[in-house]
Amino acid sequence: MEGIKIVTIGGGSSYTPELVEGFIKRYEKLPVRELWLVDIEEGREKLETVGALAQRMVKKAGLPMKVILSYDRREALKDADYVTTQMRVGLLEARIKDERIPLSHGMIGQETNGAAGMFKAFRTIPVILDIVKDMKELCPEAWMINFTNPAGMITEAVLRYTDYKKVIGLCNVPINMVNGFARLLDVEPERVTMELSGLNHHIFATDVFVDGQSRLEEILEIYQHISAEDAISMKNFSTLPFSPEFIRGLHCIPCPYHNYYFFTKEQLEEELKEYKEGRVRGEVVKKVEEELFELYKDENLDVKPKQLEMRGGARYSDAACNLICSLHNNTGDIQYVDVRNNGTISNLPADSAVEVACIITSGGPKPIAVGELKPQINGTIQTIKTFERLVCEAAVTGNRDLAVTALNMNPLCASDHDANAVIDELLEAHKKHLPQFFNFIK
Amino acid sequence: MEGIKIVTIGGGSSYTPELVEGFIKRYEKLPVRELWLVDIEEGREKLETVGALAQRMVKKAGLPMKVILSYDRREALKDADYVTTQMRVGLLEARIKDERIPLSHGMIGQETNGAAGMFKAFRTIPVILDIVKDMKELCPEAWMINFTNPAGMITEAVLRYTDYKKVIGLCNVPINMVNGFARLLDVEPERVTMELSGLNHHIFATDVFVDGQSRLEEILEIYQHISAEDAISMKNFSTLPFSPEFIRGLHCIPCPYHNYYFFTKEQLEEELKEYKEGRVRGEVVKKVEEELFELYKDENLDVKPKQLEMRGGARYSDAACNLICSLHNNTGDIQYVDVRNNGTISNLPADSAVEVACIITSGGPKPIAVGELKPQINGTIQTIKTFERLVCEAAVTGNRDLAVTALNMNPLCASDHDANAVIDELLEAHKKHLPQFFNFIK
Amino acid sequence: MEGIKIVTIGGGSSYTPELVEGFIKRYEKLPVRELWLVDIEEGREKLETVGALAQRMVKKAGLPMKVILSYDRREALKDADYVTTQMRVGLLEARIKDERIPLSHGMIGQETNGAAGMFKAFRTIPVILDIVKDMKELCPEAWMINFTNPAGMITEAVLRYTDYKKVIGLCNVPINMVNGFARLLDVEPERVTMELSGLNHHIFATDVFVDGQSRLEEILEIYQHISAEDAISMKNFSTLPFSPEFIRGLHCIPCPYHNYYFFTKEQLEEELKEYKEGRVRGEVVKKVEEELFELYKDENLDVKPKQLEMRGGARYSDAACNLICSLHNNTGDIQYVDVRNNGTISNLPADSAVEVACIITSGGPKPIAVGELKPQINGTIQTIKTFERLVCEAAVTGNRDLAVTALNMNPLCASDHDANAVIDELLEAHKKHLPQFFNFIK
Amino acid sequence: MEGIKIVTIGGGSSYTPELVEGFIKRYEKLPVRELWLVDIEEGREKLETVGALAQRMVKKAGLPMKVILSYDRREALKDADYVTTQMRVGLLEARIKDERIPLSHGMIGQETNGAAGMFKAFRTIPVILDIVKDMKELCPEAWMINFTNPAGMITEAVLRYTDYKKVIGLCNVPINMVNGFARLLDVEPERVTMELSGLNHHIFATDVFVDGQSRLEEILEIYQHISAEDAISMKNFSTLPFSPEFIRGLHCIPCPYHNYYFFTKEQLEEELKEYKEGRVRGEVVKKVEEELFELYKDENLDVKPKQLEMRGGARYSDAACNLICSLHNNTGDIQYVDVRNNGTISNLPADSAVEVACIITSGGPKPIAVGELKPQINGTIQTIKTFERLVCEAAVTGNRDLAVTALNMNPLCASDHDANAVIDELLEAHKKHLPQFFNFIK
Repeated sequence: MEGIKIVTIGGGSSYTPELVEGFIKRYEKLPVRELWLVDIEEGREKLETVGALAQRMVKKAGLPMKVILSYDRREALKDADYVTTQMRVGLLEARIKDERIPLSHGMIGQETNGAAGMFKAFRTIPVILDIVKDMKELCPEAWMINFTNPAGMITEAVLRYTDYKKVIGLCNVPINMVNGFARLLDVEPERVTMELSGLNHHIFATDVFVDGQSRLEEILEIYQHISAEDAISMKNFSTLPFSPEFIRGLHCIPCPYHNYYFFTKEQLEEELKEYKEGRVRGEVVKKVEEELFELYKDENLDVKPKQLEMRGGARYSDAACNLICSLHNNTGDIQYVDVRNNGTISNLPADSAVEVACIITSGGPKPIAVGELKPQINGTIQTIKTFERLVCEAAVTGNRDLAVTALNMNPLCASDHDANAVIDELLEAHKKHLPQFFNFIK
Repeated sequence: MEGIKIVTIGGGSSYTPELVEGFIKRYEKLPVRELWLVDIEEGREKLETVGALAQRMVKKAGLPMKVILSYDRREALKDADYVTTQMRVGLLEARIKDERIPLSHGMIGQETNGAAGMFKAFRTIPVILDIVKDMKELCPEAWMINFTNPAGMITEAVLRYTDYKKVIGLCNVPINMVNGFARLLDVEPERVTMELSGLNHHIFATDVFVDGQSRLEEILEIYQHISAEDAISMKNFSTLPFSPEFIRGLHCIPCPYHNYYFFTKEQLEEELKEYKEGRVRGEVVKKVEEELFELYKDENLDVKPKQLEMRGGARYSDAACNLICSLHNNTGDIQYVDVRNNGTISNLPADSAVEVACIITSGGPKPIAVGELKPQINGTIQTIKTFERLVCEAAVTGNRDLAVTALNMNPLCASDHDANAVIDELLEAHKKHLPQFFNFIK
Repeated sequence: MEGIKIVTIGGGSSYTPELVEGFIKRYEKLPVRELWLVDIEEGREKLETVGALAQRMVKKAGLPMKVILSYDRREALKDADYVTTQMRVGLLEARIKDERIPLSHGMIGQETNGAAGMFKAFRTIPVILDIVKDMKELCPEAWMINFTNPAGMITEAVLRYTDYKKVIGLCNVPINMVNGFARLLDVEPERVTMELSGLNHHIFATDVFVDGQSRLEEILEIYQHISAEDAISMKNFSTLPFSPEFIRGLHCIPCPYHNYYFFTKEQLEEELKEYKEGRVRGEVVKKVEEELFELYKDENLDVKPKQLEMRGGARYSDAACNLICSLHNNTGDIQYVDVRNNGTISNLPADSAVEVACIITSGGPKPIAVGELKPQINGTIQTIKTFERLVCEAAVTGNRDLAVTALNMNPLCASDHDANAVIDELLEAHKKHLPQFFNFIK
Repeated sequence: MEGIKIVTIGGGSSYTPELVEGFIKRYEKLPVRELWLVDIEEGREKLETVGALAQRMVKKAGLPMKVILSYDRREALKDADYVTTQMRVGLLEARIKDERIPLSHGMIGQETNGAAGMFKAFRTIPVILDIVKDMKELCPEAWMINFTNPAGMITEAVLRYTDYKKVIGLCNVPINMVNGFARLLDVEPERVTMELSGLNHHIFATDVFVDGQSRLEEILEIYQHISAEDAISMKNFSTLPFSPEFIRGLHCIPCPYHNYYFFTKEQLEEELKEYKEGRVRGEVVKKVEEELFELYKDENLDVKPKQLEMRGGARYSDAACNLICSLHNNTGDIQYVDVRNNGTISNLPADSAVEVACIITSGGPKPIAVGELKPQINGTIQTIKTFERLVCEAAVTGNRDLAVTALNMNPLCASDHDANAVIDELLEAHKKHLPQFFNFIK
C-alpha cells in the first residue's frame, strides 16, 4: 500500500495539532496515508475534540491523509510504519501529585527529574513495554518514537528490557539549544550543529558549529555575560544564568535543566512559592490545557492555534515530524536523539541510552563518536545514569528498595529519610498505576 | 647502616605519641634506628613538647631508637626509608575558617569534604609536591606514607603531577570498618577482611569476609536494623543509620562519611547548631589539643596518654605503623590504602587514586581487582572523583574557575551562587597559603 | 563429617600417583578423608592399576585416608568439597589424531594450541559442562579445579556457559616459570613471585619479584644471553631461546609455549620430522604411559615412581594439591591460576578467563590487578582470546563455521583452505565424541 | 585571496594526472586557484614531465587554475589550504628491496604489510613529521591529507608524535569495496554506504547499506559463493575467495588485503614465483611507470591517459579530491578515512588511528560510533594495531628492538630468527634513509 501509516499513542494530547501541522507541512516528502490517534477510554473527550480539529486541519490542507481516532491500540498498530508515544499515565492529576508531594517534604518536584520524574517513569515504563510487545507482533518493522517524559529512562527501559531495537527517544531541549545558539550567533538555525554529551535533560553542548566550524569559544564568551532573558531557557521553569567561573571551568554549555542541579536551592525556593500558591507546573498546565481544549472545540478552527506555542513543549512535535521525515527519506542530516550508547560516549555503558548527535538514515540514527566525557562533567552524568538505571530496574521489577536507592543517589534529594517518606507517599498516591510495587516478591 | 630511618613531617602533631607507641610496640619486626620529627618554626613549641614526650617514651622502652627533632626538612629527608606526612598547613585556625565560612552560607563545612576539604587540599598539595621534589633528590627509594587529609586527593595529586611512584595514602576509616564488622559478627578483627570499592572517605564495603568466607548477607541483615550506637561511626561527627531500604538497595555497606551525602540535611542542621554555638569541629579539636599538650608537658608522662584515643583520629598512626611494618617485612597481608587505580576498579581512570584492599609487599601495595563498580554506587563515586580531579588541578594551577566548577559538582553544594561566594571568602581568608590562586595567569 | 572429600574425575590418569603423594605430604594441613578416583568404563583397567597403587601409597603412609574407585560420577560427586578434573576424552588415540592430522597438512599439531587444542576443547567442554551440572545438584559448594588441557578454554567455557562460579583452571607452566626464575637468580622458589599477564599457555611474566622486590631488569639481562639448556622450558617440546632484541623489545619474559608463536617455522620443522618418524608427542606419551602402567602394576610399589617426573606434566598435581591446601586453609599466598578476568587485565573482557597472580583465600582466588596490557603483548593475547572465545562457542553450539573462523584467526594456521581441510578431517576422525557438530542446526 | 591553494608533496608521482583531472572536474565546487606540485631534486625529471602534462590538462579545461612546480617545500606550503602527500622515499628502488629481501628469507614482501610495510613506514614517518613541523609554522590551518602508504601508520605517527590535529589518512580500499558491493547488488555506488571496522588495509565491512537499509545478509550470501573474478579485489595482487564457512563465521566482509593474513601460504607461494622471475610488484610497477612517463611526455597529450587506470592505485586521487571537496563545502556525506579513534571503536586506544566511516564536515571528519569489535575480528585487528604502534615508535626513536618485536608480532613473520635476519638486511639496504636507527642511543 502506498503512503505511510503513523500511529500516535496518546493522540488526545493537546500537542496533537502541532504534530498534525507538522505532517501537513511535510506532506510532499512524507506522504502520510493514515494517522491513527489512539487513546484510552478515560481520554475519549479530549481525543474526540483534538481529533476533530486534526480532521479539519487536514481537510483545509486538501490532502488525502486520513485521521482515524481509535481506542483499540492493537487494531491501530497493525502494519504501522512509525509509532509515536506521548502519553500521560494518570493524566495531569498524577503529575500534580508527583510535584506536590516531594515539595511538601521540601524536595524539588519536577516531572522529569528527581522523585517526580521517577514516578512518571514508574507509571509509564510498564505501559511502554506493553506497547513494544504489541509492536513486535503487529508492526515489527516500525520505529517507535517516544516523546513521553522522562524520555531518556523510557528509551533505556526499552533498550535494556526488550529486544526491540527500533526505538528512538526524542526531546525538544536540543533543538531549543540549536535555536538559542543560532540566535546568539545571529545565524540561521539550519547552519548550527552541536556535539552533545549526556543524557536526556542532562546534556552539555561540548561543541557548537556553524557550517561545520567550531564556534565554541565565542559561545563560551557570550555565556559568561549572558542575562537570564538571553540565556537558553525552557517555558516550564525560570532559568538563572550560570556564573562566568562555572562556564569557563566547564568549558561547555549546560542545558537549561541543569538549573535544577546547579541552582537547586533557588529552584526549590521558587517551587515552594508555587506550591504554596497552588500553581505548581502541573496545576498551571492543567489550566492552559483546559483553555486550549476550549479553543480546539471551536468548529471554525482549522489550523494550529497560536496559543499552543505557549504550552511549554514547543518544537517537540516538530522535532518528531523532522525525525520521521529524515528516517523516511534517509537524509543523513544531524539530529539529537536518545539512542543506545554503543560506545559513543566511551565511559558510559554500551547498553544505556544517551542523548547525542546522530546522523539520521533510513536504517536509524547513527551516533557520532564523542569519546570520553571530560572530567568536569563525567561525575554528574554518571550520577544521573545511576539514577536512571535504578529507576528502570525498579519500574520493571517493582522493587521499592531500588526506588529508595535511586532517589538517595539523585542530587535533588538531601536525606535518606526524605527519600523514604516521599516514596511511601507517592506509592500510595499512585497505587492504582503501580501494581508492580504492590505485588513485588523479592 | 643498620636499622630504619623514618621521617615524620608534621612531627609536632598531637598524634605523634600514638605513632611513637606504634614503633616501640613493633620494634622487633621494625627496628627503627632514627625517627626524625620535622616541623616548621611556627610549630616549634608543639614539636618540642611532643618530641620530649616521644624521647621519654623511647627511653622508658629501653630501645636504641633515636628521636631527633628538626626544623630542616631537607636535612631530615636525607637517606630516609619511610616518610610519613601529617601536616596541617595554616594550623587549626585555618581549619576553623574552612568550617565556619561555608556554614555561614548554609553549606556543610567538613575538613575532608566539600568546600572545607577543597581548601585543605589547596593549602596542602603544593607543600606535598615540594616534599616529593625533595624526596626524589634526597631519598629516592623512600616510601611516602601520607595521612594528611584529604588523603585521597593528596595521593591523586602526587600520582598525577609528579613521577614519584612510591606514595601511599592512608586513612583510619577502613580499619574502623574492619573493627566494626568484627564487633558486629563477634569475631576477632584479625579474621575480618573486606572488598572495598571507592575513594578516600567515600568507600563502600562491597564484601566482608571472615577467614576468607563472605559474610556480606549477614552484615546486610544486621545493618538493616542497626541503631545509631551500634552503627560503625567516627568520633568527629554523629552518624545516623541508613534505612533498611537503602541498605538492601545498595547491597553493600557505606562508610560513615556517607552520612554527609545521604543525610546532608540532617548533618547540615547539626553543624549549623555547632556553628552558632562556636563549637564546630575545629574549635572542639583546638580545645582537645590544648588539653593534650598540657598533658604532654608533664615530664613524668612517658607513655601515650589514654585521652589521645578520644581525639578522633584513633588508629590512624597505628595503621601507619602497620603499613610500614608490612612494607618492611614483605608480609603480604591485606590492608586498605590509597593507590594508583591501574584498572583495579574498571570504570575509574587508571591514573587516579582509589581506596581499595591491597596486599602489602616490600615492592608496595598490590591492589586486588574489584572489577566494575555496580550501578548503585557508580554515580556517587564518579562524582566525587570528578570533584577530586578538579580540586587537584586547581590546587596545582591556581585556577579559580576549576575551584568553582569542582564545588558546583560536589553534592554538598546546592547553588552556583553559593559556590562562588564561599570560594571568594575562603580564598581571601587563606590568601597567605594560596599564592597559586593570586598569581594565576590563564 | 570431619575431613575433606575430594573427587578426581579421570582418576585413572598416570598422574594420579603424584596427586596422591601430594595429599599424603600435606595431610596435616589438608586432612583428606576420602579420595574418590572416578573414571569411565573404558578406563577400568588403568583406574584399577593406578587406584591400587594409590591405596598402597596411603597404606604405607599410615593415614586414615580412604581411596575409593568409582565408575559412577554422580555417586562420587555427592557432598564433595573439591573436584579435580584431569580427563582425556577419546584417550591418547584421540590425541595422536589431533596431532597427526594437522601435521599431514603442514600445520602444527599440539594438544593445547591451534587445531589440536581446538579439538581437545571440542571433546572436553561438553563433558565438563555436564560435570558442572551434576556439581550444582550434588555438591554446589565444591570447588572445581580443572587441570585438563586446554585449561584456559575449559575455564572460559564454564564461566561463560554456566552460572557456576567456583571453578579454577590450573596449569604447571607458571610454577615452572617460578622455579626457572629462582634457578636463574639462585634463590629459593618460595621467595619468587611474578606478575603474570595473559592466558593459559600464553602468558608473559611482566614482573618478577624476590621477597617482593622487582628483579625484572636482572632477569631480562640474563634472558638476552641464555642458552637453550638454561632457558625455562617444558618437557614436551624443545625450546629455542628468543633473540636479545625481542626480549628487550618485549620487556617481559614469554612462557615456553610462545615458542610455537615466535618460532613457528622451527617448531613445525621439528614436528614434521617427528610426524614422519611416528613419534609425535601423543605417540611418545603413549609409550611412556604404557611403561608407567607396567611400573604401577608392581604390587611392591607403594610410592610415586621417579619415572613419572619425566612424563611432561611434572608439578601439575603438586600445583593442584597446593591450591586445594591454600583454599582450605585460607592462606592468602600467591598462586597463578585461570579465573574470571573481572577487570584484572583492563583490556580483556570481564567475563573471560585469564591466567594471573591471585591470592588464594577460602573464598577463592582473588586476582591482583594487572592494568592494561602493554602494547607489545596486547595483540597476540587478544588474538588467542579471540581464538578461545570462538572455540568455546563452537564447542557448545557445534557451529562448524565458528571452528573454521577460530582456526583462521590462530597464528598457527596459514590458510583458510587448510583450516577447512584440517577441520573436516578432524571432525570425521572424532565424530563419535563430537555429536554437537553433527546435530547442528543453524 | 579567492580560491583554494593546494600543495601536493610528491607531485612528480605518476598518479598526479588523476589528481589534476579530479580538480578540473570539481572546479565549480572546489575552485582551486593554485596547485603546487612539490618534489625533491632526484625527482626533477618526473616532476617536469608530469607537471607539464598537468599544465596542458588545465589549459585544455580553460580554467584559471595555476599549476606551479616547486622543489622548495617551505615556499610551497606557505598559506596552503590543503596539503596532500603521496611520497615514495627512496623511490621504487627502495620498494623493490622492501619486497625482495623478505622474500629471499621466505617471508611475504608487500609494501603496506609485514616487513616491507614496516620499512616503508620507517623511511616515510620522519619525513612526514618534518612536513607537519613546516605546516605548523607555514599553514597551521591546512588539512594534511596523506595517501602515502602505509597510510594507517603514518596517520598514527602524526596523531601520537605531534600535536597537529588536522591530518587525515586516505586509502582506495574502502571506495573499491563500496564499488564492489554496488556491483554485486546491482545498484549505483552513490547509494551504498558501509560500517567499517578496523585499520588501514585491515578493515572489515561489518555492515553494508543501500539507501540506508542494511543489505549485509544478502552480501554475505553472495560472498559465500563468489568466484575469484567476482570478489572485490585489488590490482596489485591476486585475491582468493574466502571459504563460505569463514564468511559465515565472520559475519562480515574482509577487505582484499586480508588475503595476506588468511591465505598467507598461497600468497607467499605466488610471491616467491614472482621473486624468482624478477617481477615482484615493485619491479612490475617500475615498468608500468616508465611506460606511463613515456606517454606523459607526449606534448599532444592533454588529458589523463586511460592506461593510468591500470596502475593499481585507481580511485586514490579521486578519493582525495572527493574528500577535499567535502571538507571545503561541509557536505556531511559519508567517507572512509583514517582518523583518531577517540572511542569510535571501543576496544582500541583513543589515541590510535582507525579506518572508519565518517561524515565529512568543514571541521573535519566526524566518525560514526562502531562500538566494540565483535570477538571474531577483535584479535586480528588488535594484533595489527600492536604492530602499527611498535612500528611508529621504532620509526620515531630508531629502536631496533621494537622493530624486531613488531615483526615478531606480525602474522606474516613465522620466526624470531627470520625477523632479525630480514631486519638486519633491510636496515643495511636502506641505511641512507634510516639515520635514526644508526644513531640510536638507548
